[in-house]
Amino acid sequence: MQAPLLRIRINHEGNTALGPGKIELLQHIAQHGSISAAAKQMRMSYRRAWELVDVMNRCFDQAVVVSTAGGSHGGGAQVTEFGQALIGAYQQILQKSAQAAADELQLITQHLKKD
Amino acid sequence: MQAPLLRIRINHEGNTALGPGKIELLQHIAQHGSISAAAKQMRMSYRRAWELVDVMNRCFDQAVVVSTAGGSHGGGAQVTEFGQALIGAYQQILQKSAQAAADELQLITQHLKKD
Repeated sequence: MQAPLLRIRINHEGNTALGPGKIELLQHIAQHGSISAAAKQMRMSYRRAWELVDVMNRCFDQAVVVSTAGGSHGGGAQVTEFGQALIGAYQQILQKSAQAAADELQLITQHLKKD
Repeated sequence: MQAPLLRIRINHEGNTALGPGKIELLQHIAQHGSISAAAKQMRMSYRRAWELVDVMNRCFDQAVVVSTAGGSHGGGAQVTEFGQALIGAYQQILQKSAQAAADELQLITQHLKKD
């Protein structure tokens, strides 16, 4: 077993629209129904998590995360259907890329030093 | 035509062994035969360029860039055959990934806001 080798970012006008951090954040929000709980899980400040969500919501033509009434702190967050589709598409991109470029990744990996 | 959408990094123990910046730097070194000229082209300090080269040389079990005698400032740099193979492998990974995940990339792109 080895650590994730491939990291993929989707660019939008010079900025990262989607990358490993944003996807992990969305997954935590989906799981916990709250940006603050997701931030805690990722040892990230609430402010930073909120900013990442805000960037995604601004990059795309639809909301990725929406606020919901209720939740343990009187208000939660929910990943939209569109946000779920983005998570799925991103995971597919990662999987298909690793598969399609397996030979080249192997060529690079075999020359990386093992500590 | 659109700006590059996909950015790919190859990780090594939590750090980036190869990514768009390092590959571009290698290409400039190969073209100019000098780290300082390559740094200039990328509007990067010589120190920063040297550090990126050093990280690559340490990550891999073979040198990626070597010093050469001569050159316009009394000493140049050359991308090794292994370094050239890394550039080629990286470009293949990018191309094969974009091709294999074209549908998912399209799904994401079509929802990115156009400014």
